[in-house]
Amino acid sequence: MRHLLSTKDLSRDEAVHVLDVTEDMAATQLREVKKLPTLRGKTVVNLFFEDSTRTRISFEAAAKRLSADVISFAAKGSSVSKGESLQDTAQTLEAIGADVIVLRHPASGAPAVLAESGWIAASVLNAGDGTHEHPTQALLDAFTLRRRIHGDGSRGRGLDGVRVLVVGDILHSRVARSNLWLLTTLGAEVTLVGPPTLMPFGIGDWPATVSYDLDAAIAEVRPDAIMMLRVQRERMSDAFFPSAREYSTLWGLSATRFAALPETCVVMHPGPMNRGFEIASVAADSPRSTVLEQVTAGVSTRMAALYLTATGAGA
Amino acid sequence: MRHLLSTKDLSRDEAVHVLDVTEDMAATQLREVKKLPTLRGKTVVNLFFEDSTRTRISFEAAAKRLSADVISFAAKGSSVSKGESLQDTAQTLEAIGADVIVLRHPASGAPAVLAESGWIAASVLNAGDGTHEHPTQALLDAFTLRRRIHGDGSRGRGLDGVRVLVVGDILHSRVARSNLWLLTTLGAEVTLVGPPTLMPFGIGDWPATVSYDLDAAIAEVRPDAIMMLRVQRERMSDAFFPSAREYSTLWGLSATRFAALPETCVVMHPGPMNRGFEIASVAADSPRSTVLEQVTAGVSTRMAALYLTATGAGA
Amino acid sequence: MRHLLSTKDLSRDEAVHVLDVTEDMAATQLREVKKLPTLRGKTVVNLFFEDSTRTRISFEAAAKRLSADVISFAAKGSSVSKGESLQDTAQTLEAIGADVIVLRHPASGAPAVLAESGWIAASVLNAGDGTHEHPTQALLDAFTLRRRIHGDGSRGRGLDGVRVLVVGDILHSRVARSNLWLLTTLGAEVTLVGPPTLMPFGIGDWPATVSYDLDAAIAEVRPDAIMMLRVQRERMSDAFFPSAREYSTLWGLSATRFAALPETCVVMHPGPMNRGFEIASVAADSPRSTVLEQVTAGVSTRMAALYLTATGAGA
Repeated sequence: MRHLLSTKDLSRDEAVHVLDVTEDMAATQLREVKKLPTLRGKTVVNLFFEDSTRTRISFEAAAKRLSADVISFAAKGSSVSKGESLQDTAQTLEAIGADVIVLRHPASGAPAVLAESGWIAASVLNAGDGTHEHPTQALLDAFTLRRRIHGDGSRGRGLDGVRVLVVGDILHSRVARSNLWLLTTLGAEVTLVGPPTLMPFGIGDWPATVSYDLDAAIAEVRPDAIMMLRVQRERMSDAFFPSAREYSTLWGLSATRFAALPETCVVMHPGPMNRGFEIASVAADSPRSTVLEQVTAGVSTRMAALYLTATGAGA
Repeated sequence: MRHLLSTKDLSRDEAVHVLDVTEDMAATQLREVKKLPTLRGKTVVNLFFEDSTRTRISFEAAAKRLSADVISFAAKGSSVSKGESLQDTAQTLEAIGADVIVLRHPASGAPAVLAESGWIAASVLNAGDGTHEHPTQALLDAFTLRRRIHGDGSRGRGLDGVRVLVVGDILHSRVARSNLWLLTTLGAEVTLVGPPTLMPFGIGDWPATVSYDLDAAIAEVRPDAIMMLRVQRERMSDAFFPSAREYSTLWGLSATRFAALPETCVVMHPGPMNRGFEIASVAADSPRSTVLEQVTAGVSTRMAALYLTATGAGA
Repeated sequence: MRHLLSTKDLSRDEAVHVLDVTEDMAATQLREVKKLPTLRGKTVVNLFFEDSTRTRISFEAAAKRLSADVISFAAKGSSVSKGESLQDTAQTLEAIGADVIVLRHPASGAPAVLAESGWIAASVLNAGDGTHEHPTQALLDAFTLRRRIHGDGSRGRGLDGVRVLVVGDILHSRVARSNLWLLTTLGAEVTLVGPPTLMPFGIGDWPATVSYDLDAAIAEVRPDAIMMLRVQRERMSDAFFPSAREYSTLWGLSATRFAALPETCVVMHPGPMNRGFEIASVAADSPRSTVLEQVTAGVSTRMAALYLTATGAGA
């Protein structure tokens, strides 16, 4: 795999392969083989034009477990913000020795531009671009869900027929987009639920059912998993955002709604959670919640992504 | 040792054991064996809710010498400051792979809450909590003082009968508290000296003599060691803080007071020093000053604390 | 080599030796031996009182390839900015274990003061001090130029008779100063070109020709290399700075001027570039441009400097 830019581009075979390599990585962690020599001598640069402590330290932990050297480059306050182009910054990082550039950028499409421009030979991993994609988040979600559903028999399998609700601000969520493409590629049936003002234009063409009523969707879909999106607090002052109270009442996973879910329904959230707002603690802390499994899967997923791109292996 | 939360909880045997392990760690440094494989594959997370470059890089250096991976998580500007709970942050860090969480927090008691809550299996090291404790600082101070007094015969010994003055803003100082508990546990006799407005309520119940007159205390106690506390400049505008001039005149270690100390009295300061304010350069730079020995001992002490908690060894 | 403070102090033999060791370091990178055990167990501290992401990560990458532990200490917001002296900060870093201190400081001469004071035994590498020197930049420039001119026959050679234009704000540029001393020591002939208001007082005593007319200088000197200095945007509001348009028109390397250069003339820039301002893209992206080679040479040069100072080898 040369780069990892989106889940939309992944074929089913490719996606299953990445999940299977993630199984391998997770297995080494369980066997307490925390340090693999796989990427010894390779340099991974975290080039973050947006703050994201969680995603950055997850990639950092993944790179270190593969014995790579890690350089973190927060673009704020650096030459980048002094007007240097993405091309010059990336070429400079490659000249310093970067083998993989993990890029988080506010502009949708920036990682694809960087990867496809021919500016650099280094691999590009998209760690979130604008409202476009966040592929490692979707892969870790799919890995977690596959494990919950198929257990030790997960290898080689997709998520055929699995019913998933994705709930929240679909309009601005790259996590929703990346999950939608990957889940449908893996055979799942996705229903997107949220306020009408927070649904993207043209959503009718997406491979998903759309609903504005969470209670009705729970009752009709009988989901196998519900993914609550994080509410960005800075969005809450937006004119198109419902009042906080309205949002929480209508689209939050309250204790009542949690009780109305099928008994085996998995509860997912990418974190950090706004407890009591988009998710009640009884749901977040339930044995059916995968919140912390997702975090752990994140490290294994990023190990797989770094391994596959840095070595050009498989897929 | 499961966690290191306070010195108040340490028995004499436990405290002496930690100091003896610190001797082992210091010995490897002297033999130029700078890198030990002890914690290879372990991940240490520095979770700092308050800035403290010195303490952070001391823990970082200690962890690296034990071959651990280190992840630094400054809570400012991260999801934490966006309202995530300490529980969720800590559980996330453990899910990412943290074996030890080094926690600095403005709330007194936060490390104990984290350790005793059952939220995480990782060990917790208190790197300073509110006005409560700073146990590794007290341990490094005790280590330094024991070395000065007992030299190569330090192993297994306490500080019985050693007379120590602790001078400054006792009210707000976690260093003063941690030192008081540890020094008395080790058999030392402690006199706390400072402005009456900067003594905590209920100090009469502490196992220490209290004095408001530094000159009298020096004359009466004939101390074996004097520990000058750092003045936090931000406190100096506080209504209860004496004027800067008054403080320096009455409770600073001036050249005159330095000359009045017993000839063998050790001069200690946790750094960074406000030279000419709480301590004169003639004292700070004297051969009897242990300021830099304390810094070096800090790395050995933190190596010992990381080793003992991460491996669950001894004590 | 005990410290690396300036290029002015380097004899020709010393300078050639550093360039030759840089050849060794570069050769290991080409052979994909990215990780050398040379400085295992040594600690390099980046002590930066000015932001410089590029220089910092270049030193960081160099130190990691030599297997050193790296601690980055940004002086902003730390105890340093709370008034601690450079002496106390440096002694503290050494007590924590620093073997080499890489110092960037706004005050000209600060690294020399630190190195010559006797305060510390650690080596000091000047990573830029005020308007004084930036020796590793000059060494990487000379290394790059020597490679372009002498190719595989570079070892042991200087730059005798090589004609170099250095163009821009000479007054404020430590890069210009360090390059001037090193280039002339190596036998090159240097012409400094720039606005008259941005030439230092006393420049008549420097070992260089001075010109205010870039077109005339190109025509008369027929340079083998042209080094464009980076324009610091914050300078552009300065009363002595020409208008941006005037600067770009008169002292920028435009497409026309690029075409007027001798066909073999090497184009150099320390980065980050202000494209279209001090350098046109046709020049920056030409095969004769060494901009990215300079970045790569920067890592090899800093590996050489760290190796030579930390081990006290050669020179």
